Amino acid sequence: MRTLGATLHAVSPGAVEIALVPGPAVSQQHGFVHAGAVSAVADSAAGYAALTLMPPGAGVLTAEFKINLLAPAAGDRILARGRVVKAGRTLTLAQAEVVAETEGREKLVALLTATLMAVQGRDGVGD
Amino acid sequence: MRTLGATLHAVSPGAVEIALVPGPAVSQQHGFVHAGAVSAVADSAAGYAALTLMPPGAGVLTAEFKINLLAPAAGDRILARGRVVKAGRTLTLAQAEVVAETEGREKLVALLTATLMAVQGRDGVGD
Amino acid sequence: MRTLGATLHAVSPGAVEIALVPGPAVSQQHGFVHAGAVSAVADSAAGYAALTLMPPGAGVLTAEFKINLLAPAAGDRILARGRVVKAGRTLTLAQAEVVAETEGREKLVALLTATLMAVQGRDGVGD
Amino acid sequence: MRTLGATLHAVSPGAVEIALVPGPAVSQQHGFVHAGAVSAVADSAAGYAALTLMPPGAGVLTAEFKINLLAPAAGDRILARGRVVKAGRTLTLAQAEVVAETEGREKLVALLTATLMAVQGRDGVGD
Repeated sequence: MRTLGATLHAVSPGAVEIALVPGPAVSQQHGFVHAGAVSAVADSAAGYAALTLMPPGAGVLTAEFKINLLAPAAGDRILARGRVVKAGRTLTLAQAEVVAETEGREKLVALLTATLMAVQGRDGVGD
Repeated sequence: MRTLGATLHAVSPGAVEIALVPGPAVSQQHGFVHAGAVSAVADSAAGYAALTLMPPGAGVLTAEFKINLLAPAAGDRILARGRVVKAGRTLTLAQAEVVAETEGREKLVALLTATLMAVQGRDGVGD
Repeated sequence: MRTLGATLHAVSPGAVEIALVPGPAVSQQHGFVHAGAVSAVADSAAGYAALTLMPPGAGVLTAEFKINLLAPAAGDRILARGRVVKAGRTLTLAQAEVVAETEGREKLVALLTATLMAVQGRDGVGD
Repeated sequence: MRTLGATLHAVSPGAVEIALVPGPAVSQQHGFVHAGAVSAVADSAAGYAALTLMPPGAGVLTAEFKINLLAPAAGDRILARGRVVKAGRTLTLAQAEVVAETEGREKLVALLTATLMAVQGRDGVGD
């Protein structure tokens, strides 16, 4: 997240918000934030949201995610809002909405759904 | 791609290979390449593969992608191999396999499918 | 939908609900409604929701969908609630939640996101 | 599968083929095989392919799948070819191609990727 310039913005049980201020490092050739960076913050928001509901000591891995890119991600700030749809023993489903904020107005730019896996006691994966 | 340290490795009609040498900028807390970076190179490989079959002047946008992350992306080099599954007038379906190379041996770490949209004549999107 | 025993339950602009009363034709070997039938009603709910916002005469085709199956679909009634996330000129993103109703209580069993394409003037596809 | 008129066509370790002869029960309003039925046979082909590599007594559940629908599914016969991409202890990734056969010639109509979960000792899920 440091590479992208993203910061954790808000955390509550089952919900996490990540903010990204667009800069040249995450922008592609057309001036928008690159789909890869949008996906990364969306996946992180979903993953951390899942982690908030997991037992202490557990780590989280993304098994898969799907993202629909709805509009160019351009604006003053990109916000990824992750929330848990269903927390399970092995698998958790979370979703993240990504909005681009311009002069205080928000526009939906992407929607992600992710399957997260809780991992315990794996070397180097505990969080 | 520059931010991630990725380079275009091979290009032929309908197929593109991107290479990424893991460094600290793209690694997450457990030492693996971050899922977001894996997704970014996979999406780029699929997108450029689609672009090779589009008419001159067209640009390419990712409408959606889905990625399954199968194993930690760790190794000497990460390779994303994109290929077009079906090229259409409006929509193209492409797939990318991501492998991690360690001492010359490859391991499949991710599989992506993406829907790409050809765009023509949109300001700043022509490639 | 007739084959599955599904019926259109509620329609408003951008939102459609389809109901399915489980019977032997749609049940798999463990007594649950088959994932294929759950997907079919979810996809239909998303598709019809998209169609409510399209111009008269347009037809709708599903370009792709993704479904997470969260719990066995068993109960008195299966409800698929589709709603449009973003309506576009070419592509529309819609989502459908599928719940299983047992004695008036609902349980989320599946979540689908679909990309729908408006088609106009194609032989036999106009709706 | 019986409801759809589908039959198991070929089975080998990690690979399964299911055939479907289109009839009115699985066709939608435009005369094509309904996306729901295409998904059902594709998901079944992927699921059974996964099952061939699981330990005896295990059952298989689909955690999620994604399908791209590339062309109308019309023809003499629909074939879904499932194969395992990666078999894991908990999760297996499988893929299925769906082709429509017309006078011996094949056309790719859909591509599915699915995450399957091995389940053991759950009441009524052992296969």
